[in-house]
Amino acid sequence: MTAQDPLPSWNDGAAKSAILDFVARVTKEGGPDYVRPAERIATFDNDGTLWCEQPLQPQFFFAHDRLKELASADPALREEALMRAYIDRDIEAMKGFGKKGLLEVVTRVHAGMSAEEFHNCARNWLATSRNAKLGRLYTELTYLPQVELLDHLRANGFKTFIVSGGGVDFIRAFAEERYGIPPEQVIGSSARTRFEMRAGDGVIVKLPELNSFDDREVKPANIDLHIGRRPILAFGNSDGDLAMLRYCKSGPGARLGLILHHDDAGREFAYDRGFRLSPLVEALDRASEYGITLVSMRSDWNCVFDDRPVTTEPRPE
Amino acid sequence: MTAQDPLPSWNDGAAKSAILDFVARVTKEGGPDYVRPAERIATFDNDGTLWCEQPLQPQFFFAHDRLKELASADPALREEALMRAYIDRDIEAMKGFGKKGLLEVVTRVHAGMSAEEFHNCARNWLATSRNAKLGRLYTELTYLPQVELLDHLRANGFKTFIVSGGGVDFIRAFAEERYGIPPEQVIGSSARTRFEMRAGDGVIVKLPELNSFDDREVKPANIDLHIGRRPILAFGNSDGDLAMLRYCKSGPGARLGLILHHDDAGREFAYDRGFRLSPLVEALDRASEYGITLVSMRSDWNCVFDDRPVTTEPRPE
Repeated sequence: MTAQDPLPSWNDGAAKSAILDFVARVTKEGGPDYVRPAERIATFDNDGTLWCEQPLQPQFFFAHDRLKELASADPALREEALMRAYIDRDIEAMKGFGKKGLLEVVTRVHAGMSAEEFHNCARNWLATSRNAKLGRLYTELTYLPQVELLDHLRANGFKTFIVSGGGVDFIRAFAEERYGIPPEQVIGSSARTRFEMRAGDGVIVKLPELNSFDDREVKPANIDLHIGRRPILAFGNSDGDLAMLRYCKSGPGARLGLILHHDDAGREFAYDRGFRLSPLVEALDRASEYGITLVSMRSDWNCVFDDRPVTTEPRPE
Repeated sequence: MTAQDPLPSWNDGAAKSAILDFVARVTKEGGPDYVRPAERIATFDNDGTLWCEQPLQPQFFFAHDRLKELASADPALREEALMRAYIDRDIEAMKGFGKKGLLEVVTRVHAGMSAEEFHNCARNWLATSRNAKLGRLYTELTYLPQVELLDHLRANGFKTFIVSGGGVDFIRAFAEERYGIPPEQVIGSSARTRFEMRAGDGVIVKLPELNSFDDREVKPANIDLHIGRRPILAFGNSDGDLAMLRYCKSGPGARLGLILHHDDAGREFAYDRGFRLSPLVEALDRASEYGITLVSMRSDWNCVFDDRPVTTEPRPE
């Protein structure tokens, strides 16, 4: 360990030791667990792993705000139960339609937008939208211990990726600035798109059809498609991440799989099995059998949120 | 320009000047065309742009060899005209079925393989397979001037990507070693896959269905999906690359779009409009209207192939 603690927001304990030991082992040239830099791939879930996902993943509220706008011009949208749940911000009903419902809504409400239009729309929304209960911008609800971990991994030659059930373009609108993760290292759910010439300019236009719902067994498949290499470290917080963790752990050599357990009702939220949008059941019950390290928000982190001011300046990787 | 020429295999002329000037302009801090490193994205086609694609793209022969093996165990494969063309290595018939036919064949003949099995299969094939006319390993038919260009771009903070109609996993089997491009920076055509547990290990298994045919208008759509940023430099050699080039050129600020023209029957091959697998017509006729720089293999390159020995050691990026 260096004189300066690379993970000051992490308390000493089993989780922090597991991380520091793993990084030391895979970077030790000539050591038995050495991994060359090109293969130091780390994949992180986003919602609930890198930022707060309660009471719902922020993208639900993004979809609500956009749909409310559209519904004022087109009241017929209220006729569909799924749309009505979002227009009315009926959280229980929104939960009932699940993440798949969210993806259907976001795919439909952003159809026809160009990639650049969507990016600006998401950036503008993120610049002013707050978590009602915690009173902070969503982008201020990113977890500082995880930002430190991402920085520590990159300082040790890792390439850090997000692999999320959330919409890839939504995450790309803030991931570079808040996590130091550039757009080409974000994998997520996506809509189909089409290239077309508009007034002489080539643009990417979003279509009203889902391309990929990047959850559960689809996560490793998308990692293979986008990265082409098995991660040696994976971090999640729900059963939606379990396939990714087991994929990571199945490779040869040193591997680290981590699950963040939200057990901190005081500073954030306490939930696991009962969060039906993204439950944590099997990964919790069988963590030790699967060789997964559990991280307790309450006892492993001495602070939770990233207080750095939100700027428009991207963090260099 | 530095004392040492970064592109020694390029002859002085309009194409080389366009490249060197472009790189100098976008990297000049405080200059009007400055682009921050994170946005220095360069995308290259592979077949015919980074390596030789005559008489057919090497993947055709890879598919032939695999199919010949399968057909000896399963003669019923000969009943299908598409399969028969490949089993018999009937080049005219293979051309007739086009790149789409190739993708159908490779998708079917590799179905059921795990990602690791496919990778080893492709590596083994590439280690010994030669271009019959030129008498060299396919991997020795990579273009040295392009390797220099990739190196020069990376030395100037660019991130280099391949965006190919060829199979993504086939290209990944040699791109790191020959081009210094890691698997996560290779985009290509792909089969659908499924994550499954095999004897306790999580593996990615190839399915007999096409996921994406990465050609023409699909290239910019896949760039958006995988990179999430518009390239500022794009390099191709056929109309299959034109959408990517126009997408690149449509963005704001300095942009460079290049087309390699194969006009060198002496050292390689001379072809354009007549190569029906991948014709060069519109991009040639309208290059100047579209602001695309034409590169002549015959006059712009003083050598063609990369003579560095083929090793198993990947080139560091």
